[in-house]
Parts: sequence; C-alpha cells; structure tokens
Amino acid sequence: MNPATKDAAARAFRLVHHAMAAAGIAVMLAATMERMQRDYARGLEIAFLAVAAFFAIEFILRLIAAPEAPGGAHRGAGQARLAWLGSLPGAFDFFAALPGAFYLIGSHDAQLFSFIWVFKYIRYSPGLVSLGRVITHARHALSSVLLGFMIVLLAAASLAYLFERNVPHTDPQAFKSIPEALWWAIVTLTTTGYGDVVPVTPQGRMLAGVVMMSGILVFALWAGILAGGYAEETRRREFLRTWDLVAKVPFFHDLGASVIAEVARLLRARDYPAGAAIVRRGEPGDCMFFLVEGEVEVRLDPQSLRFGAGYFFGELALLTGAPRNATVVAIRPCSMLALDIVDFFELLGRQPELAQAIHEEAGNRLGPDAPVHPALKAMLARHKRTPKTVS
Amino acid sequence: MNPATKDAAARAFRLVHHAMAAAGIAVMLAATMERMQRDYARGLEIAFLAVAAFFAIEFILRLIAAPEAPGGAHRGAGQARLAWLGSLPGAFDFFAALPGAFYLIGSHDAQLFSFIWVFKYIRYSPGLVSLGRVITHARHALSSVLLGFMIVLLAAASLAYLFERNVPHTDPQAFKSIPEALWWAIVTLTTTGYGDVVPVTPQGRMLAGVVMMSGILVFALWAGILAGGYAEETRRREFLRTWDLVAKVPFFHDLGASVIAEVARLLRARDYPAGAAIVRRGEPGDCMFFLVEGEVEVRLDPQSLRFGAGYFFGELALLTGAPRNATVVAIRPCSMLALDIVDFFELLGRQPELAQAIHEEAGNRLGPDAPVHPALKAMLARHKRTPKTVS
Amino acid sequence: MNPATKDAAARAFRLVHHAMAAAGIAVMLAATMERMQRDYARGLEIAFLAVAAFFAIEFILRLIAAPEAPGGAHRGAGQARLAWLGSLPGAFDFFAALPGAFYLIGSHDAQLFSFIWVFKYIRYSPGLVSLGRVITHARHALSSVLLGFMIVLLAAASLAYLFERNVPHTDPQAFKSIPEALWWAIVTLTTTGYGDVVPVTPQGRMLAGVVMMSGILVFALWAGILAGGYAEETRRREFLRTWDLVAKVPFFHDLGASVIAEVARLLRARDYPAGAAIVRRGEPGDCMFFLVEGEVEVRLDPQSLRFGAGYFFGELALLTGAPRNATVVAIRPCSMLALDIVDFFELLGRQPELAQAIHEEAGNRLGPDAPVHPALKAMLARHKRTPKTVS
Amino acid sequence: MNPATKDAAARAFRLVHHAMAAAGIAVMLAATMERMQRDYARGLEIAFLAVAAFFAIEFILRLIAAPEAPGGAHRGAGQARLAWLGSLPGAFDFFAALPGAFYLIGSHDAQLFSFIWVFKYIRYSPGLVSLGRVITHARHALSSVLLGFMIVLLAAASLAYLFERNVPHTDPQAFKSIPEALWWAIVTLTTTGYGDVVPVTPQGRMLAGVVMMSGILVFALWAGILAGGYAEETRRREFLRTWDLVAKVPFFHDLGASVIAEVARLLRARDYPAGAAIVRRGEPGDCMFFLVEGEVEVRLDPQSLRFGAGYFFGELALLTGAPRNATVVAIRPCSMLALDIVDFFELLGRQPELAQAIHEEAGNRLGPDAPVHPALKAMLARHKRTPKTVS
Repeated sequence: MNPATKDAAARAFRLVHHAMAAAGIAVMLAATMERMQRDYARGLEIAFLAVAAFFAIEFILRLIAAPEAPGGAHRGAGQARLAWLGSLPGAFDFFAALPGAFYLIGSHDAQLFSFIWVFKYIRYSPGLVSLGRVITHARHALSSVLLGFMIVLLAAASLAYLFERNVPHTDPQAFKSIPEALWWAIVTLTTTGYGDVVPVTPQGRMLAGVVMMSGILVFALWAGILAGGYAEETRRREFLRTWDLVAKVPFFHDLGASVIAEVARLLRARDYPAGAAIVRRGEPGDCMFFLVEGEVEVRLDPQSLRFGAGYFFGELALLTGAPRNATVVAIRPCSMLALDIVDFFELLGRQPELAQAIHEEAGNRLGPDAPVHPALKAMLARHKRTPKTVS
Repeated sequence: MNPATKDAAARAFRLVHHAMAAAGIAVMLAATMERMQRDYARGLEIAFLAVAAFFAIEFILRLIAAPEAPGGAHRGAGQARLAWLGSLPGAFDFFAALPGAFYLIGSHDAQLFSFIWVFKYIRYSPGLVSLGRVITHARHALSSVLLGFMIVLLAAASLAYLFERNVPHTDPQAFKSIPEALWWAIVTLTTTGYGDVVPVTPQGRMLAGVVMMSGILVFALWAGILAGGYAEETRRREFLRTWDLVAKVPFFHDLGASVIAEVARLLRARDYPAGAAIVRRGEPGDCMFFLVEGEVEVRLDPQSLRFGAGYFFGELALLTGAPRNATVVAIRPCSMLALDIVDFFELLGRQPELAQAIHEEAGNRLGPDAPVHPALKAMLARHKRTPKTVS
Repeated sequence: MNPATKDAAARAFRLVHHAMAAAGIAVMLAATMERMQRDYARGLEIAFLAVAAFFAIEFILRLIAAPEAPGGAHRGAGQARLAWLGSLPGAFDFFAALPGAFYLIGSHDAQLFSFIWVFKYIRYSPGLVSLGRVITHARHALSSVLLGFMIVLLAAASLAYLFERNVPHTDPQAFKSIPEALWWAIVTLTTTGYGDVVPVTPQGRMLAGVVMMSGILVFALWAGILAGGYAEETRRREFLRTWDLVAKVPFFHDLGASVIAEVARLLRARDYPAGAAIVRRGEPGDCMFFLVEGEVEVRLDPQSLRFGAGYFFGELALLTGAPRNATVVAIRPCSMLALDIVDFFELLGRQPELAQAIHEEAGNRLGPDAPVHPALKAMLARHKRTPKTVS
Repeated sequence: MNPATKDAAARAFRLVHHAMAAAGIAVMLAATMERMQRDYARGLEIAFLAVAAFFAIEFILRLIAAPEAPGGAHRGAGQARLAWLGSLPGAFDFFAALPGAFYLIGSHDAQLFSFIWVFKYIRYSPGLVSLGRVITHARHALSSVLLGFMIVLLAAASLAYLFERNVPHTDPQAFKSIPEALWWAIVTLTTTGYGDVVPVTPQGRMLAGVVMMSGILVFALWAGILAGGYAEETRRREFLRTWDLVAKVPFFHDLGASVIAEVARLLRARDYPAGAAIVRRGEPGDCMFFLVEGEVEVRLDPQSLRFGAGYFFGELALLTGAPRNATVVAIRPCSMLALDIVDFFELLGRQPELAQAIHEEAGNRLGPDAPVHPALKAMLARHKRTPKTVS
C-alpha cells in the first residue's frame, strides 16, 4: 500500500471510529429514557451491540497487531502485547471493549458503561494532549492546592458540625454528622451553593463566608498556576514551530539538529503592518526571513507571487552577500522571524567547521563560480591560519 | 461633501442608529410585560414598526450601495451585493432587517426577535473586536478544554445516573435518565448549583465533589489560556502604537514602512517620575524621545510649553549631534520611548543607503550648511570607500 | 508645631477617625435589628448622632481649611473650597457628612445612610488606590467584556422567554416577561444559581448550559485582563522602588532625577542563597550593591555588622577602583541589585559631564589626594582632548 | 546511628505519623455518625485515645528534645523550649496535643477537635509551604481586595435592606435587618447563591446583578494577583535549581557561593528535540551543558551511556579547550542550560583571581602537563603584567 492510500484509509477509519463512538453514546442516552425504551427497546439493543462489537473487534485486532508496533523490535509477541496493554492507547482500547464483554457475561447494566467510549476521542485530540501536559507539569502545585483544599474542607465541616448540629434545619439530616457537614462544606467551598443545606446560626454563617472566600482563593490559585504553565507550554510549542521553519531551509537541513537549534535561537521576531516593504530589490541583503503569520507579495520584474505562513526568503544573503533580487511587501500584517547576517556569522565564528559546510553547500547550490559572502570568505581564511581562541 | 461634514454626518447617523437599537430593545422588553401590553399595546406596536422599518431600510440602502464599497471595484453590482451579504457587517444588517420582514409575513412573534438588534452594537465597539481576536487566536486551546468539559460531563451524568436512579429525590424526574442527569451535571460542573436536582447517596455526593473540582479546573484553564492570549494581543497593540509614534517623525516618514519597523524595535522604554529633568539645555544630545504617557514641559529661554502623549523631541540629536537647545522636565510621571543615538547609528551602519537618505533629509530640513553629526559624516565617508562587510 | 508632634497628631487623628467609622457602622447594623432597637433605641440614636456630628464637623473644618491646601496658592477662598469639594477626598468627606444632614432635616432613614462611612477607609488604603489604578488602566477592556456580557444577557433572556413562557414553573411569574427572564439570565450567567427560577424544557436547559459556559468565559477574560494589568502595575512599582534605592546613595543624590533614572535602568537583579560571600575583602571592586530583600553581614576586621533591606555597599568601587575593604556575606537569602562598573562607565562615557561631576564628588568625599579609578581618570582626560563622537 | 539508618527511621516515623493523623480523622468522622456511635462507641473511643496519646507523647518528646535543635547552641534548655513552642512546627505539635488534653480534663467534645490533626500534614508538604510563600508575598494586594470586598458587602447589604425590607419573602426573616442582609450579600458576592434568600423587587434584583458582577471582579483580581505571584515564585525556585546544578560541578564547588551565583546567571536555556546531536566527537568544545529535563546518550567509542536530569558534560571545554571526546545525543526532548565559553571568560576577565583559581584547579584535576585553554593562558599572562582597568 503506498503512503497516500494508507493516509486516506487512516482518515476513513478515524471517521468511522468517531461516528461509532458518537452513535454508542447516543444509544446509551436514549436507552435510559423511558419513552424511548418503551417504543424502540429492540432497535436500541441492536445498535448497542453493533457499536460494542466494533470496539471489541478493534481491541482484539490491535492486540494481535501489537508486535508490529515500532519499538517492539526484539521482543516476543506476548511481551509486546503486554507492553501495549500497559500503554495509554492500549488501556483506552481495552476499556472500550468492556461494554461488549459485560453484555456477553449477562450484566444487566452493560449499556451504562457505554460512556467509556467518549474517552476514545481523547486520543485523537492534540489539544487535549497538550493540556494534559500543562496539567502534568503543574501537578505538584495543583495537588498542593488540593491538599490545602482538603484541610480547609475538613476544618470547615468540623466547625460547622459544632455550630449547627443542635438547631433545626429544612433538611433534618443536615449537619447531624461530620460526613453530612462535609457535603455542605464542598458545596460551599466550590461556590456551587445548591442551597439544600444552609447554615442558620450567626457563627455558622460567618464560617460559611470564610469558606466561600477560601473557595475563591482556590480558583485564583489554580488559575494563577495554570496561567504560568500554559505560557510555558506555548513557549515550548513556539520553539518547536520555529525549529520546523528553520529545518525546511535546504542548506540548514543537512547540518543536523544541533545547528538548527542554534539557528532557531538566533531568530528575532519582527512585525510588519500591511503595506510595509520588507526587502527592496537592489538593497544589500543583511538577513533572511521566515513568515510565521500573514501574507507577502514577492515582486519580481515581470510577475508577482503571493506566499503565506511557512514561506522563507532572503536566504541567499547568508551565502553570497549579493543584493536583493526582488522586492517583498507585506500584503496583510505579518509576523516574521529574521535571521540577521551578523548573528549568523557570529555563530559561524564560534563553529568554523560549520562555515566550511555552509561554503560547500553554497558551491553545490550555486556552482563553483558563485560569489561568496566576503565575511564568509574572510572567516574561512582565518580558520585555515589560526587555531580557535577567544580574544 | 467635504470630509468634515461627512464625519459629522457619520457621527450623527451612529447616534440615531444606537438610539434606534436601544429603543427597539426597550419596546421588546415592555411588550412582553402584561401590564404594559394591556395599557399601551397600540403605542408599543407603532414603536416596534418604526424601529423595524428603520433597520429594514438601512439594510436595503446598504445592499444597494454595496457596489461602491472599496475592494469591489471591477465586479458587477450583483456579485458585490452577494459579497457584502456574506461579510460580517452585511450579515448583521441582514439579521437586523428580519424582525420587520417577519411582521410583514404575519408572524405573531416578530417582536421577540428584536433582541437581534443588540448585536448591532458589536460592529461599533473596537474593544469587542479586539477581544474577539483574542478568543479567535485561542480557539484551539479553548475548544480542547470544551471537549474535555464534554467528556467529564458525559461521564459524570452516566455515573450519577448509576448511583442515584433508584433513590427518591425532591424532583421525582431527577436522575431518571441520563439526559436528566446531564442537566444536573452541567449545573454542577459550572458551579452554578441551582439546587433543583441534588444527589443524595454518599457515592453520588462524592462524584458531585469531584465534578465541582473539575469545574474549577475548567475555569482556571480558560483563565490561564486567555491571560496568555490577552498579553499577546496587548503586545501586538503596543507595537502598532509605537509604530504610529515613530511614523509621525517627519524624517522617518519618508523612509518607508520597513525602516519604521526597524526603528520601532530599537526604542527602549524609560520612566521618569514627576520633576525629573529628561534633557538639559547645553548637554550633548544622545537620544530622541517619544512621550507615551504623561506630560512634559519644554523650557525654552523666554517661554515654557507643555506637551502630552504623542509629543516627540530631541530628534535633532540624530542629525546634527548639536547640544540640546532646551531643557525638558517631566511635569507628571512620564513613560517615554527613547531612541539611543548609538542604536540608531548601528542600524545605519547596516543600511548605508539609509544613512545617505538621512543625510539628505537633514540637508533639506536644516539647509546645506547645517552641521552634520560627526558619526554620520564618518559613516557616509566609509560607505563611499568600502563595500559592506561584516568585520 | 514640629514635624514629629504633627506626625503623632496625624496618627492619633487617623485612629480616632477609623474608630468613629467602625462605630458608626456597628450602630447602623444594630439599629436595624429588632431586638437591639427594642432594648437600646435611645443609646443607639445617641451613638449615631455622635458619629454623624464627628463627620459633619470634620467636613466643615476641612472645607474651611481648604484654602491652605497646597496648589491653592493664588486663588480666592471660595474657589479653593469648590475645587476641594470636586476632588475625591472632598467628595468622600461631603458624603460622610450627609447622614448627619439628613437627620437634621428629619429624614426617617438617616441612619441607613451610615454605610457611606465605610467608604472613608478607601482614602487611607494605598493598596486600594493601586488596585483602582489597575482597574482604571484596564477599563476599556473590562467594559468591552461588560458590553459582551450585556449582549449575551439580553439574547439569553429573549430566547429563554421564547422557550419557557408557556410551561408551568415553581414560581408562576418566572419567564412570564423578558425582564423576568433577565433575572434568570444574570443569576445563571454569573453562575450564582439561586435556583428560584429554573428552566424545565430541554431547549431551555441547553440554552442554560451555553449561558453558564459563557459566564465562565467572562470570568476567564476578566481574570486574563487583570492579570496583565496587575503585572504592569507591579513593574511600575518596582521601578519606583529601585529609583528610591538609587536616590539614597549620596553621590547620586546630587546628580538629578534624570541620571538616577539612567542608573536605575542599569541595575541587574542578583539572588544569593544564605551563606554566599557577596564581596570578599581585598578583591578588586567591580560593582556596587543595593539590598532589596534579605540580610547581609558586613565583616570588618574587629567587628561584624548586620544590615537589612535598603542597605547599599561597594559604592567606593565606582569612585576609586580600590580593593574591597570588607567581606559581605548573605545571612538570609538575598535579592540584590548590582550596578556593574562597566555599565556605569559606559553611561559616563556617553555623558562626560557626569564623569566630571562624579570626579568632583569623589574629591569632596575622599579628599583631593584620594585615589581615582583609572578608567574614570582616562575618561576625563579623553573628554578634555576630543569632542564627543560615536565610533 | 549512621545517616542511612537515621534516614530510614525518619521515613518510617513519617509513615506512622501520617497514618495516625488519618486514623484520628477517620475516627472523628465515624464518631459523629449516629449509626457508628450506636454500634462501635467503645472501639471508637479507644481508637481516639490511642491517636490522641500518640500526638501528646510526640509533643512532649519534641519539647524535651528541643535544646538539641540546631541554632539553640548556647541557650538554656528552658529558653530553647519556649523558642520551639513559638515556632511554627512547635505550635502545630502543641495544637495536636490538645484533643488528648481536653479528654483528660473531661471535655465532652474532645473528639471534635481531632480535625486539628489534619493541619499536621502541612508541615510535610513542600508545595503548601511554597504556596504559603506566594500568598504571603501577595498579602498586601490580596488584603486590599478583601477590604474592597468588605466595602461592597456592607454597601450592598445596606441597599438591599432598604429595597427589600417591606416586601414578603419565602424566608420571613430575610432582609429584616442589615446583619440578615449581609448573609444574602456574601452568598451573592461570592456567586455561591444558595437561594435561601432572594431579592424580589426590581431594584433589589438590579443591585443583585451588580453585586454578582463585583464578585466576578474579586475572583479575577485575586487570580491576576496570584498569577503574578506564582510566576515570581517559580522564577525564584528555578534560580535555586540552577544554583544547585552549578554547585555540583567539582571545580565550581570550591570557588564559593558568590562565583556560583555569577555562573548561574550566565547560563542560557536551550531546548533540543529528540534525536538532536548536542555535541559531536572531535568538534571544538565551546560550552558546557547541564541537563535540566530529558535524557541524553553519551556515545563513547566502545559503549554508550544514558543520563537523566542533573547530568552535566562538556566541562573540560572550559579548562583545556580540547575538542569533544564524545558525541552526546538527546534521546528524549531535552531542556539544557548551556554555559558558553565566551561568557565564562568574560566573567574571568572581570575577576582575574578567579582565572588563577580555575587554572590551579585544572592543574589539580588534569596534572601539571595538562593542556590549558589558550584564552585562559592569555588571561593569566595579561593579569600578571597589568593592573585591572576598564578599557
């Protein structure tokens, strides 16, 4: 199977998979409604069985196919299957097979476990994976807040029990034991406030006020923690995107991941409003550009071309130092990353081997008689004469 | 019509427009109140018709005028009208015309759709547009949280249904089906807590506690995501403001958008408390200033002048290197942006053509015999002798 | 009256003032409680009158004293009084006098307006003033969210009225008009959820879910906006604190606000854990330090001294270049601001007049034969020979 | 006792301690439940006494042992005990002993104070201590918001009392006095919304809407304040972690805390994706690396080794300038801190004594004939010839 066919097949499977999960959940919702159950009991059961069978078969096939998974090269098939079962996707698929299994062993509530199928969407959502990473990174801080939350909860419930146990309430059970008071405490601390249990003594109400304020503090602490965590995750994702942009430039491509990381660090963000001329034909080229967002028009003499995010230009400036051969204008407001020639040669200056590689690359791309940037030439000459020192 | 008259007309129209929308909404509110309906039915209907007619006519006129809109130059009138209908303002105006149309075709509830008129305010609020951009940028992250929200919602409703269906509740329908339990779940997950449906079993209450905590997490995640997005939007707006400040300086004005972007990047924020002398008469000028916030007093020999945000001074330092010819004092705490002469000449050093243009500009502004900054002179001389290299 | 006496008097007055406001509020609370009113009516009225008289007299005295206020120098007394009435403190004092005035004109509810006295605390809380500035700066963004809030509110109320008006509710008035539905909408959108009005139709409940989610978005947007605004306010306050630290150093003190601002910009934050040796006796001095937080021990030969936040040391390094004459060790974790000699001389290099002033200052402080830092000497010599250029 | 045994004993004690606190709280919860009390009263009392005795004995033993605590060297035993009682751990232990004491003096509710034991977990949670520091730092801002909260609360309660006192409510006591109205105000301002007290007049409902919006503002302000505070705390913790990383490198270890702080400041964050070659065998070494997160594989000629967070490599580059003797590849995405040789020598250039120390350290580590980095050699030579100047 060639990659394109495989890709289309994967997309088609994902579509069927998502539709099946949605159908399974819809059937479960309907099956619990009396009216639906009365009129369509048979149809609902058949639909449930179809979905359950689909996920059970998917699980079995994936379990069998597990040895082919990458990373399982030198292990036995049994071991590979166990490893897959222990992984997150394996666990999700295993749970998705459960409603079918429950039905086979005659469980009356097999259908109720259909809600497990909703978790199958998680695997296909990159955004949820990214959020999961934010929460995982912040787990220590979040769970510290949770521990504080529990301490406040227990103290509040104990004090509320002390204050309120001997006065009558609408619900006669309210505050009759600390576990009952805990229910009031959590409803109050999260500022949910059902109103089924409400303190009536002045001291109980003062306590309630303090508990509500603590609840707001918990909100605020979590929000503060996650704001920082999310900013960090964004920064990380930005770096990976920058990396990808740089890796697409042909002559960086061959220089290896370490150099790309160095180059990605040198990039500087620049914004241009719509209509700004980013480079002008005939000007000396002093940097190359990566277009992150927006649209540019490259004006060559006879025609004009438009490019969107991911486009890069001006890379010849780094090799030959020749003047710009086209004018590039921002059509819409553009966010660019610029690699300044000065920064680039400073990097080369610290890694003369890299300068040599760049020089050869220029030769390959432009022919042996191509002009070479004077600074690059000087650097190569200096490299030949002297050992590397810091002076 | 000259621009001033046109501007005044636009302001007057906006006033009438906002008043009409407000009146339409007030009429709708009154029309649903029994007492008002009984006493003023006739008046309310007339008022409704007036507003509906106003918006219907506005829609028709704008639709006819559509071809004149910028960007629709070489298309036929029909095409231009369709394009306008598909745009956001067109869609708003179309919906605003609906209540009138519904009335014409005899719909009983025509008045109820008057609430559509409230959306007409959106178009005139730059702040809402800016918030819309924040939300649009963060839409992937926000919708990932929403997907997680849905998953928690469904799982919570299913488990609550399992735990609570067989025990009596105040509302006998509560928890009798999963859709009913979903209502409880969303009221709890958003920590709204109406209290019309409340779990009573211990396991149901534990589940409720977990759901409430998840609700706080959703709050916190969204707050974290939007805090980052809003900071980014603020940074973007700041840059555009800086750009505008720089673009107002006469000799930058002619140098094109690309140079302005470069110069805007070189600016450094500086704060001065009230009473600080920012520049002193006779001192050598080493930077120019843009006043972002606050007020300064320029003390020339015979008189003093005060300037507010948007004022710039010290620009001669960049051209002539002559000493300051006035003392400038911060009257109120000032936020300034300073363009250091060293940074400015470093920029010129990388773009010698720019140095030439600056030099000519100085000649135009100050006469051919004007003093020229020694560094600028040196740069021009060097530029004539040698090709650009990085050394 | 000498300043110390005046200060003590101001503190005493503030104490009386705060106690009076607290007493006034306590009396108001008590006066509305039936039991207290029955038993202590006479005492409560006397207490109220005492407090009301106090604030009325304060207002009158301050009004008479207004002409003495700074800034009112050359105006007539009447004008100065009007100006003071229009200012924020004047308005607060005016409102605080109202309960007494209402009592005089026989208003039955005079006491109820005692809550006005709580606002008098605002004037004495620098934190509230600072928060007020954050909210003021963010007012455009906050009010945009508020406008969006209103639009959602009205649309939600209209739709809820459409969906729910013809079905029975616990409260028969609920959803009977759009103003009634607006009450439900705001209780839901803020996720308060009293539960007195609850939608019962499936479509009404779906709408409620969307409204609750929008409410969370409003929370999140405001939190995001205020997080940025608060960070900005913190940065501003930090700068002012840095400024104050620098302004305390004797030889900066005489150089004027502009130089202090420059120096404050050059400071770099450095943290030291407890036990770290910050400078060592005999080492060449290359920077001076300002202690922002923590505690240091200065070890001179015979004795040791401890200093806390606000202390600065190492300033001789900037004048003489002599080696350190003491060892300074961090006793507790310290946050320091360091002024590096290289940065400082770079600043001097751009402002040779400043170098001259520093040199003279060193002469005054250390005597004419004091050693002078070689770099400072070189700078002064260069300054005499050559005009300032950038090279 | 050797340290390992001591450590294991401490871990075992902590386990027992946590189990005891958990048991004590579980007993308290059970003791308030009627059914448990009826069936197991005797067992619950014995369990309570066991836990109470445990904490009482712990308190007494720690009190006796107090003189041995570090920092109490030259004081008498009595003084040391008092100091310990006044410290936070001492206070926690004292309160934990109270339930036992109350039982001894015959208090009926002794068991109810068992919730005090939950606070004993605080001492062992570094996360809570860290959160406590965030809240402590932000206490001025948080309490300003709290003051604003109180002012809104009182004003809202007074106005609600004015508007609602003369209309009938479900709860006839609601709004009958301002203290009653305060209960409504706090339930509304925190958006808890029990629904036991609800305004019914139009003006009361409008007030309620404003109060709810103010509540959201309080949430948002606290979240904004804590987001900033948490970011600051994170930055501080990051620095301490960086410090620890640097302090582990042998030849920095002997140079003292001040140099480590300087070096820690010079580190630059670098991210590498999985598979990137961080250094290559034979390349000139220009920086050393600290692995903060992720995993690297060091490829020596015959074998490969893997290292995780905390590993550092490339330190020879700083001493000898010799080419890399191994290739290091990122196995998983890595966050590194890099110390560039240029930055490092710039630091040495400002502190020539440090260069001397580094040189000697290199001699000790690598033998007297070891190669020395040419730049280091040049620096030492220059140091011998000339006094330190800034040029």
